[in-house]
Parts: sequence; C-alpha cells; structure tokens
Amino acid sequence: RAAMSYPENSVGARMDFEMISVREDIRLEAVLKYLHRFENLPDHTDQLFVVGLKGQFVGVLPVSLILVHESFVTVSDLVQTDILTLNPLDNAEDAAHAFERYDLVSAPVVDEAGRLVGRLTVNDVLDVIQEGNNEDVLASVGLSDEQDIFGNVWETAKSRWLWLGVNLCTAFFASRVVNAFDGTIERVVALAALMPVVAGMAGNSGNQTLTLLVRSLAMGQVTNSNEEDLIYKEVWISVINGIVWGAISGLFVWLLYWDSPYGKTLGFVMFLAMFLNFVLGAVVGLAVPLLLKRFGRDPALGGSVLLTFSTDSGGFLIFLGLATLFFPSA
Amino acid sequence: RAAMSYPENSVGARMDFEMISVREDIRLEAVLKYLHRFENLPDHTDQLFVVGLKGQFVGVLPVSLILVHESFVTVSDLVQTDILTLNPLDNAEDAAHAFERYDLVSAPVVDEAGRLVGRLTVNDVLDVIQEGNNEDVLASVGLSDEQDIFGNVWETAKSRWLWLGVNLCTAFFASRVVNAFDGTIERVVALAALMPVVAGMAGNSGNQTLTLLVRSLAMGQVTNSNEEDLIYKEVWISVINGIVWGAISGLFVWLLYWDSPYGKTLGFVMFLAMFLNFVLGAVVGLAVPLLLKRFGRDPALGGSVLLTFSTDSGGFLIFLGLATLFFPSA
Repeated sequence: RAAMSYPENSVGARMDFEMISVREDIRLEAVLKYLHRFENLPDHTDQLFVVGLKGQFVGVLPVSLILVHESFVTVSDLVQTDILTLNPLDNAEDAAHAFERYDLVSAPVVDEAGRLVGRLTVNDVLDVIQEGNNEDVLASVGLSDEQDIFGNVWETAKSRWLWLGVNLCTAFFASRVVNAFDGTIERVVALAALMPVVAGMAGNSGNQTLTLLVRSLAMGQVTNSNEEDLIYKEVWISVINGIVWGAISGLFVWLLYWDSPYGKTLGFVMFLAMFLNFVLGAVVGLAVPLLLKRFGRDPALGGSVLLTFSTDSGGFLIFLGLATLFFPSA
Repeated sequence: RAAMSYPENSVGARMDFEMISVREDIRLEAVLKYLHRFENLPDHTDQLFVVGLKGQFVGVLPVSLILVHESFVTVSDLVQTDILTLNPLDNAEDAAHAFERYDLVSAPVVDEAGRLVGRLTVNDVLDVIQEGNNEDVLASVGLSDEQDIFGNVWETAKSRWLWLGVNLCTAFFASRVVNAFDGTIERVVALAALMPVVAGMAGNSGNQTLTLLVRSLAMGQVTNSNEEDLIYKEVWISVINGIVWGAISGLFVWLLYWDSPYGKTLGFVMFLAMFLNFVLGAVVGLAVPLLLKRFGRDPALGGSVLLTFSTDSGGFLIFLGLATLFFPSA
C-alpha cells in the first residue's frame, strides 16, 4: 500500500493495514459470523472499525463490547465515536504521547476525506518512543540516529566532523579569552592550573540544570504559570551550590598554596569566580531551552554546546579578570 | 492487594489485578455467558487467563480466538500454553523488553506455586520505558529520578552534591597535573591558553564513542562476536579524527602565534597532543562501558565522569609533557 509515500516521522509511515471494518447497520450476530471466517484476528485487534453506508469512517467497536453483549444488538448501538482518530500526516511522536495518555492499544487513521486508511498500534508506538529516545541521546553528542556501528570507518569519522568543528570554534574562543590575560598568568602561574576547575565545576552544575529542564519540558511538567518558580528555584540552587563549592574550592586552594605569598588572595578569587560562574551556568542552562521552546524549536537542541561555551569562556573571563584586579602588575 | 510489598523495579510492583480468568474445562458458550455479566471488560483485555481445576495457571485464551470460533468449542482446545509468563520478582525493564520483542498487550504474572497473581499490560510497560529513559538521562548528570522540580530548594541543592564533589576531585587532580608543569608554562605562557582546547576536543570525541557504545549495548546490538570489530572501528575513527582535528588545530596555532619564535613548534606539539588525546578518549570511552558490562554493572554508569577525568588529566599531561620536551629550559 501507500505507507512508503508518507514522511518519515508521520503516522502514515508507521501505520499498518490489518484492520477489520464492519458496517454500522448490522447486528453483532452478523459481525460474529463474519469473524468466524477468520483463522485468527490480526495482532492488537482490540477494536473493529465501523464504517457507514458510503464507506465513511464512523467510529470503533471494541471487541470487549462484542463479548459482553447479546448477538441481537446492532453495531450502531455500541459504536464509539468520541475517540482519538489520527491523520496520516500527524507527527508519530505526538501520536505516541496520545497513546500513553489514553492507554490505547490501537487507533484508526483517517484521511481528510473521512476515509479509514489504516490503523496505528501500541506496538508501532513502542518503536517510535524507543527510536525517539535513542535519537535524543545520540543528538546530544552530535551523532545522527543513522549511525551504523559497523559501517564504513571513513564515512562514520566524517559524520562526526560538524560537531567537532563547532566545538573547536568554541574551544579556541575560550583559548583567546585566556590569551588576553597572559600577563596575569605569567605573574601568577597557579592561575593556569586552577582555571579549568572553575570552568569545569560550573559546567557540571549548569548541565544539571539544563538536563533537568529539558526533561521536564519534554514530560510537559513546565507550564507558563510555574515556569517562573522553576527559574527562581534553579537560580537559588546555583547560588547555594556556588557558595558551598566555591568555599570548599577556595579553602582548598588556600591550603594548596599555603606557603606562597598569594595563597589567601588566590583562594578568595577562586571562591568568588566559582560562585559567579555557577550562577552563569544556571542562567544559561535555563535560558537556552526556554528560549528554544519559545521560538518553537526543540529545547534539547545544542544546549550543552552553548552551556560549555559559556561556562568555559565565561569562567576563564571571570576568574582571570578577578585575578587581574587582585594581582595588579607591579 | 499486595502490589506495594514488591521491590520498586519489579513486575509485582507494576502489575494490576484486573484479569478475567476462566476454567479450562468449559465451553466458549459458558465463557460468553460469564462475560455477558460484565458491563464492559477491563482495559487491555486481549486475553483471558485459563486456570485448571485446582486453581493452577494453565495458559491464556486470546479474545480473538473466542470471536473466531463457534460456541461449542471447549477452552482447553484453544488455550495457549507456549507463552511468556512473568514472575512478580522479575525486573520490570526486562519484562518491558519482552513486551517489545513479542508485541504483547498483556502477560500473566504467575508465582512460584504456579498461581496466577496478576497481569502486566503494555500500558504499564510504556510507563516503565519512559521512566527508565528519564532515569538514564538524569543519572548521566548525577540527578536522581526523584528530583522534584518544584521541591525544597535546600534539599534539591544538597541532592546534587555527590556529583559535584566527585567532579571537584577529578578537576583538582587535573589541576595538580598542570601545576607540575608550572616551569614550562612560565616559559611559554601560550600553553595555558591552548591546553583546554586539547582536553575539550578529545573529551567531545570520546563522548561520541562512549554514548554510541552505551546505546548500542542497551539496544543489544553488541555481541561477543562483533565487539572486537566495534573496538577496532572506533579506535580507527579516533586515529582519523585525531589526525584531522589535530592538524587543523596545529595549523591554527601556528597562524595564531605566527610572530612568536615558538609558533611552529607550538603548532606541532598541539597536533601531536591532540592526536594522542583523541586516541586516549576513544580507548577510555570504549573500555569503561565494556568493563562495566563484563562485571555485570550498568554500562551507562559514571562513564562520562571517568572519560572527562581521563581526557582532562591525560590531555594536560600529554600536551604539557610534550611541550616540556620541545621547549627545554635554557
């Protein structure tokens, strides 16, 4: 049939044609006589599809209703019309969410002209969900879901270049930030050893915020009314954790550089920079998915690249900037 | 009933008790008479459960077979015994995979004594799959799936400490590696600006390998026979991409430090260090999940922390070590 001509992520590409349809004007007796001609019914036949005299789709007849009713009842007395019907061009992931919400086993697919063209089953929905999850995870490191783990080495290597190229640009940008402070680093070489700690810790904390928000958005837990609460809460968490981990790091730096003349100041710069970078990480981790959502894009898209870019470049800038203030050139 | 007393991720905790059971020695006529007493059947009743004279579980009777057979047929003639039965203590995620594999709508849950204690439906399975995916994603940044996005700020902040603490330790370890080369950095301060590029790029490349392998393991695409091919392929990809991106970075560094006396050597050190760190990233990204799998642990566990630790500390060591060789103190 025509399944191949529908777009890849549409209901039409996923539906099957193993539906049994019956006319609405017949009795269950006739339905059973029709069913007795089958060896067995197709998998996932939890309902029959009811069509009118002109072939138009009317509704569904759950098999459970056939089983609990006497055979003289007419199909039109049992037909359920207040049900989910899908269009072949509907997005398959949206359809999957509807299956979860309404606990469906199968659903009719009906075209614009009101004709039954196929059915989607929970079995197809499981595939859609698994593939979708797989895609999200792979996309988060710049891999496509078409990665063949045993395919051609050269092709696979090339397929990873876009992601690596983007990351090279952000890494070199961060590198130029550090370079701008080469005078300060020459004076206090310990800064070179400590700056990746500031960047890395805030990156980790920001990633927690980002990941939580992206998941919550995907699960529909974030609404316009509670969005502000969530932002407020995550910023406060970053303030608390920035102070806690900034203080731990600062004290640790003070101990590490105990015998150096600038140990105490270095510890304080560490504390302040880490605190500020934690807050920056939270702000970026919140802003990227929320802005993407507002513009109708996938909130999961590219968040981690932008976050790492911010906490790296921003972290280096804050840490080395503060150090330049606190360790002025003689 | 007893659902609450089973462990959290067990089939017992997920099953429901809305199953209809029939005796094996009766005719379909009697089955239908019994079903006619219902207003409707429970959701997801794709099969009835057949029990013997002593109450022991015998098998299932798909409702589709009731519909296609005449009413004088006996249940024992239609009962299917070669089916998946679950134990209440089975792992719910394993059961979910069985549902996917065999396209099930419901499955009987039978205890050690052979008694039917409940049923699992595809609806429960969808929940298990979604929660499992959610858990994996959150766990990858050290969050538990019990995160309440609108819960207490202080409690939530504390729940993130373990992850941040572990990352602080690895970050300070990497910092000590850099510190060991402070003499070299003092001589060539550009090294401080470039070392995060080496660490970050190999971390990204290693994360691609790690993520792909973890997903492939989860989807059952990796077997003992093809494991070696996969390792071989990913190492080759890291060699190719290490050369490509090492060369691009090396040339870029040469250009950036064109007017410096050590620009050319610095570019070469960059190339060599990035190449070696790419290979290190691939080895760690492969080794961590494969070793975890061999020891029967979850291959997704903690991989990214160990990877970042290796590509950071290892990257700094390789880059600054090479630089010390190429830029000896006068």
